[in-house]
Amino acid sequence: MARFNTPIDDIKYLNCEFLDRSLLKNSPLLSELNDDTTQAIFDEASKVAENVLFPLNRSGDEQGCSYNKGQVQTPDGFKQAYQQLTAAGWGNLSCKTEYGGQGLPHYLANAVDEMLIAGNMSFTIYLGLTIGAYHAIEQFASEQIKEQYLPAMVSGKWSGTMCLTEPHCGTDLGLIRSNAIADGAGAYKITGSKIFISAGEHDLSENIIHLVLARTPSAPAGIKGISLFLVPKFLLDKKSQLSQNNNVSCSGLEHKMGIKASATCAMQFDGATGYLIGDLHKGMQAMFVMMNSARIHVGIQGLALAHAAYSGALDYAKNRLQSRSISGSKYPELAADPLIVHPDIRRMLMTMKAYTEGARAFSSWLSFQLDVSQYCDDLIQRQQAHELVSLLTPVFKVFLTDMGELVSSLGIQIYGGHGYIRENGMEQYLRDARICQLYEGSNGIQALDLIGRKLPAHMGRYCRHFFHPLSAFIEDHKDNERLAAYIRPLAKSFTRLQNASLYIAQQGLTNPEQAASVASDYLKLFGLVVVAYMWAQMAQKIDTRQGDMAAEFYDAKLVTGLFYMQHLLPQTTALSASIMLGGDSVMALKESQF
Amino acid sequence: MARFNTPIDDIKYLNCEFLDRSLLKNSPLLSELNDDTTQAIFDEASKVAENVLFPLNRSGDEQGCSYNKGQVQTPDGFKQAYQQLTAAGWGNLSCKTEYGGQGLPHYLANAVDEMLIAGNMSFTIYLGLTIGAYHAIEQFASEQIKEQYLPAMVSGKWSGTMCLTEPHCGTDLGLIRSNAIADGAGAYKITGSKIFISAGEHDLSENIIHLVLARTPSAPAGIKGISLFLVPKFLLDKKSQLSQNNNVSCSGLEHKMGIKASATCAMQFDGATGYLIGDLHKGMQAMFVMMNSARIHVGIQGLALAHAAYSGALDYAKNRLQSRSISGSKYPELAADPLIVHPDIRRMLMTMKAYTEGARAFSSWLSFQLDVSQYCDDLIQRQQAHELVSLLTPVFKVFLTDMGELVSSLGIQIYGGHGYIRENGMEQYLRDARICQLYEGSNGIQALDLIGRKLPAHMGRYCRHFFHPLSAFIEDHKDNERLAAYIRPLAKSFTRLQNASLYIAQQGLTNPEQAASVASDYLKLFGLVVVAYMWAQMAQKIDTRQGDMAAEFYDAKLVTGLFYMQHLLPQTTALSASIMLGGDSVMALKESQF
Repeated sequence: MARFNTPIDDIKYLNCEFLDRSLLKNSPLLSELNDDTTQAIFDEASKVAENVLFPLNRSGDEQGCSYNKGQVQTPDGFKQAYQQLTAAGWGNLSCKTEYGGQGLPHYLANAVDEMLIAGNMSFTIYLGLTIGAYHAIEQFASEQIKEQYLPAMVSGKWSGTMCLTEPHCGTDLGLIRSNAIADGAGAYKITGSKIFISAGEHDLSENIIHLVLARTPSAPAGIKGISLFLVPKFLLDKKSQLSQNNNVSCSGLEHKMGIKASATCAMQFDGATGYLIGDLHKGMQAMFVMMNSARIHVGIQGLALAHAAYSGALDYAKNRLQSRSISGSKYPELAADPLIVHPDIRRMLMTMKAYTEGARAFSSWLSFQLDVSQYCDDLIQRQQAHELVSLLTPVFKVFLTDMGELVSSLGIQIYGGHGYIRENGMEQYLRDARICQLYEGSNGIQALDLIGRKLPAHMGRYCRHFFHPLSAFIEDHKDNERLAAYIRPLAKSFTRLQNASLYIAQQGLTNPEQAASVASDYLKLFGLVVVAYMWAQMAQKIDTRQGDMAAEFYDAKLVTGLFYMQHLLPQTTALSASIMLGGDSVMALKESQF
Repeated sequence: MARFNTPIDDIKYLNCEFLDRSLLKNSPLLSELNDDTTQAIFDEASKVAENVLFPLNRSGDEQGCSYNKGQVQTPDGFKQAYQQLTAAGWGNLSCKTEYGGQGLPHYLANAVDEMLIAGNMSFTIYLGLTIGAYHAIEQFASEQIKEQYLPAMVSGKWSGTMCLTEPHCGTDLGLIRSNAIADGAGAYKITGSKIFISAGEHDLSENIIHLVLARTPSAPAGIKGISLFLVPKFLLDKKSQLSQNNNVSCSGLEHKMGIKASATCAMQFDGATGYLIGDLHKGMQAMFVMMNSARIHVGIQGLALAHAAYSGALDYAKNRLQSRSISGSKYPELAADPLIVHPDIRRMLMTMKAYTEGARAFSSWLSFQLDVSQYCDDLIQRQQAHELVSLLTPVFKVFLTDMGELVSSLGIQIYGGHGYIRENGMEQYLRDARICQLYEGSNGIQALDLIGRKLPAHMGRYCRHFFHPLSAFIEDHKDNERLAAYIRPLAKSFTRLQNASLYIAQQGLTNPEQAASVASDYLKLFGLVVVAYMWAQMAQKIDTRQGDMAAEFYDAKLVTGLFYMQHLLPQTTALSASIMLGGDSVMALKESQF
């Protein structure tokens, strides 16, 4: 059975040394949060992930959720863990204190999330959906609804869902058929079928608050006619206590490749009472708030599973004895050397480490930008950060989830045949990770969002928020010979990204199909450059000043960053070539020729 | 539920038009095999794959094999299918006629195998193991043993296994502990535990013939002391009829990520009677015969699953309606356009198609070389083909199995969230494909075989058998402007491969760890160039003469080849850069720094 350790040192390093938190130094958000407190929170979260959640991960996968006459039972141990975690506040770190949340910054909450997800992804989905629903309600609902629903959601007594997908429509929400008819008393009657509803029904919370996309009878066609409704499993009485059953039911569970302990439900709304959230026909606007938050969360899921796979593979590589080192026996007293002496095993471990740590730096930095966008006292900085987060959210979601698949697959490979055996736990990481590229907007859709919405926004202004500081960074350090191995590859790959961006922008205007044909390659190129920027910044900071970590830690960072520049970043050359050759051969075949 | 169609047209094209079979024109192997017969065999195999095997694929995955007190039960329908297929001779196409086989060439048998595997990989494992054991027995066993065992194995009445792995040793077979003690009557008593034994126990055949690696008491340490033994489940009496139970038992089944209908057994040998195959202490030699044949078979498994995923995804892309084409509605009468109009879906389909068809050409061509190596009347050609197959077997195994993972994952992606649902069948392809990179020598081991054994063999002679014809092909066609889009990228990537080969050869002599650190990148570069060569040859042949296929078919080949050159082959630039930067950063960290 693969062991699991959280990346606690790396998380402390990123949060307390790597992040430049000066932009929020005046914010009340950080006023009571010194590094000691931060590290204490991380230490506790690490224990919860390793000792409470991870022990339920394999058993949860094997047992799965069960369905019986509309009721859903989560695997053994989930209920106690849910009570333990919500009582300790692990589900509401970033929620506002006025509703009972911890009021902590996103960069801290997201680092905690990474550890909890790595311990047991299925379990954390129940917490994550509630937070997604919380954000939409908090931003768009009336004060009355907020007062009625948010405190119990923040405490975990009630949980939340997002009900978007229908059997015939996933990406294309304009096709939604669920309907909402005003009941004359200020509410609506919601009728329709939804599928793929995570945490749609389960036994962890007393009530479930569904946010449902539906169409009113007179609404315009397509996505412009969609509204968002809050539909509780149990209606509330005048004292906001649970009263009767609403007409919401779970008609079955999906049988999935992974995240088997997460209940993925088919939901039926049969004239259920719902309350409008936000303006009529503006449901997509509120949904995008949830979706953008969820997309960052899904990226972190990819990162978390990549780390879990790395953790398991590393332990195995250090302990499994097989063959002798090519440069002479390293442990002659043993029957064979451990796997970790072998160069091809090293290559895999370094690939896992370089991707994962680079992506974690991206996660910390982007999460901090999210805090700046909400809490910075400089409104221009706030707006810039908002646009930067908008630009990079699709890049983050795709790069980290594709990495989640790749790294968890490498974890299996290091285990050899034993990686294919369920009891060892490695193959579960790949099965669990594979969903991340599909939900909350498939990765292809993210690439179209990047080139179609984010790149052209305000004549490329979003992009400049990323390109200008990166240019300045390269300019500042290009003559530092100690950093040359980082800055030069970064500069070259950045040139490729700039050229590709220009090409995409031009094609986008004249031949959008050409641009869309290479959108996924472009996004990947973008992601590789962002992560190279993270590695170069880490190297530059370590070159200037080393902090509280052991010297070995900093040395390892410099080597791992170098590996990234030498063995992973070169992919930008291939992607650049593929992009600049355009999409003619992509689109040329007739349908009958496939 | 994903649909499945075999690639029957492509297989006919490759076998009857693409392959230059002139080297075997004098061989009795091909004398009775005209194109009509060949195509009739393919048509029948296609029906068996689609109508007999595919209907058992999903149910086999859900039901799996069950274990009860040493007995293993295969899923419902497997027994009937096994009887039907073996009765029709589908399991013994390449076996010698003197033992009851069909005596058909490898290129034909392997094309049939691709279709059968694509229909139901788990099922075909039972047939494949028997063939592997057949080849080792046929080449190394005494006449008496061959007469006793081969006819019933060829007919499928009995089946075979390969028993290599033990709990503490997979790659490192030198650590094997199973022992063999001469019984004084010409046989041995075999004792030991083996794991991961495919088809080790099941209810499909009347007897199971295990080929077991074990060590005699006085044998030298390591792999030089290992011998190969034939150990039947039931011993034979003097009339070669089944008599008593040998002391062989199955102690359990593995719970795996995929190929769940294939029984992966832990086997116990408790003083079981075994017969030496080949010379004492030369077991690895016989094992490598099985392994090399098995490695090509595993490559074909990767190809087959890639095709199955493509077939399912293509059907879905043509029928699932979602969103409108970016260049204006293509099917205004429908609620939305089918997925296939969208450029990012096209990119994925083209990637699947270009990899799969290119790999299939590689498979046909390499399988034909295997026939040349065995049946050509020119002994020099025979030797050259043997060395070429030796060189390319690791490339084939890795390139096609890595592609199997990548393409089956794209199949899920095209299905969106529905790809994650087990009933739809797409996620099974990825789970089934994932084993191929692990067994019969993990992919990392193949890369070491390529750079450590095959590349330096006879001062690079094996390599020249591939490089020289490729150079000549480029030289012959470099001025043909109609082929420029194929020949130029091929030539550039070939230069990269030559430079990388030189680098690897030099490093291999002075610093083997450096070479081994980038061996997997080098193998991938090699594979990309081989497949580019296949595509360029297809383009060149189509440019010269078109045969019996529809014009649309040839046009599609040219476009698909172009896509390969433009969007997949550029990966050679990245791999080349990664290789030439060497392995310093791969090996630099201390174990404690991971």
